[in-house]
Amino acid sequence: MRAALRLFAAHGLEGTTVEQITEAADVGKGTFFNYFPTKEHILMAFGDTRLQKIRAALDEARTGDTPIWQVLRRLAHSLAEEASHSPGLLRSILVAPLTRQPVREFMAGKLEEGRGVLGEIFQLGQDRGELRSDLTTAHMARGFQQSVFGALVLWSLDARGDLLAWLDLWLEMFLGGLDPKELRSAKTSRGRN
Amino acid sequence: MRAALRLFAAHGLEGTTVEQITEAADVGKGTFFNYFPTKEHILMAFGDTRLQKIRAALDEARTGDTPIWQVLRRLAHSLAEEASHSPGLLRSILVAPLTRQPVREFMAGKLEEGRGVLGEIFQLGQDRGELRSDLTTAHMARGFQQSVFGALVLWSLDARGDLLAWLDLWLEMFLGGLDPKELRSAKTSRGRN
Repeated sequence: MRAALRLFAAHGLEGTTVEQITEAADVGKGTFFNYFPTKEHILMAFGDTRLQKIRAALDEARTGDTPIWQVLRRLAHSLAEEASHSPGLLRSILVAPLTRQPVREFMAGKLEEGRGVLGEIFQLGQDRGELRSDLTTAHMARGFQQSVFGALVLWSLDARGDLLAWLDLWLEMFLGGLDPKELRSAKTSRGRN
Repeated sequence: MRAALRLFAAHGLEGTTVEQITEAADVGKGTFFNYFPTKEHILMAFGDTRLQKIRAALDEARTGDTPIWQVLRRLAHSLAEEASHSPGLLRSILVAPLTRQPVREFMAGKLEEGRGVLGEIFQLGQDRGELRSDLTTAHMARGFQQSVFGALVLWSLDARGDLLAWLDLWLEMFLGGLDPKELRSAKTSRGRN
């Protein structure tokens, strides 16, 4: 998978052949097709590793020793890890779901699954009084996901500045909006509904 | 431009010919090439129309009659308008900067310019005491841009639910993090720096 992703980053999914992947990984074609029936299956496996990262964060949150903001910070860094090493890889991974419907459906499913697990993390934060309780955890999960996703896509276009440092700054803003004490002043000072 | 974008949405940038565009728009090829030397120039013009939307929001904010949160809400809706009508268009627009370096550089430049104008809107909000003043307006601008961008990209993948209603919910969270009264409680309750 790593050898394939490196090649995708350099030449795109279209510009990479199975021969190049098996040669770079030093495995036989038979072995390759055992694991990945098509090149797209490599991207799908990549989606699974990201989902595992979110599940690991949920496990960490469940131990109860770590405040939720810290769990989310580590998770944001972990999700940004590959991107921060290779904006080209991130771009080539994004093109596949944008252009191919089966990959898109698979990825949309994984993202939905990811939001579900994220929602469990936010639920723990609400249960412990660390997060405001008037927003659904589904909203918080989607807000977190779209911001991390947006940060990575924007960064894949210009690759300037320190992505992880930026995610910390963003998280400070994001969590400010989820603080339990902050709700009333926001509602009363602006009267939004 | 509209005829071209419709064709891009259906067939992608690669799958659309200049002939198809000029036929759909009922203009001559000479006229087309006067405005758009290449197909990519259509996407660049599209980037300009988005920048104009942000400038219009700044003009609205400058009149001083509209609270900043309302300016941002209208802007988010306006930026999501085309996407909410056609996720396919959005996907085809995203592929070009991901796969072609000149388009990517152009788009990164436009996004940076957009963040600059957004920063001026947030600055007005700070000056009027509507937004917390301990964050730079550049951070707020980037946070806003990445979230709207992320919302559109995610929506282009599954196109489920009401995009504009979701942006309202997200904005409520986002602005909660920028409320001037909310800073101290966030700092003291979590001890983040």
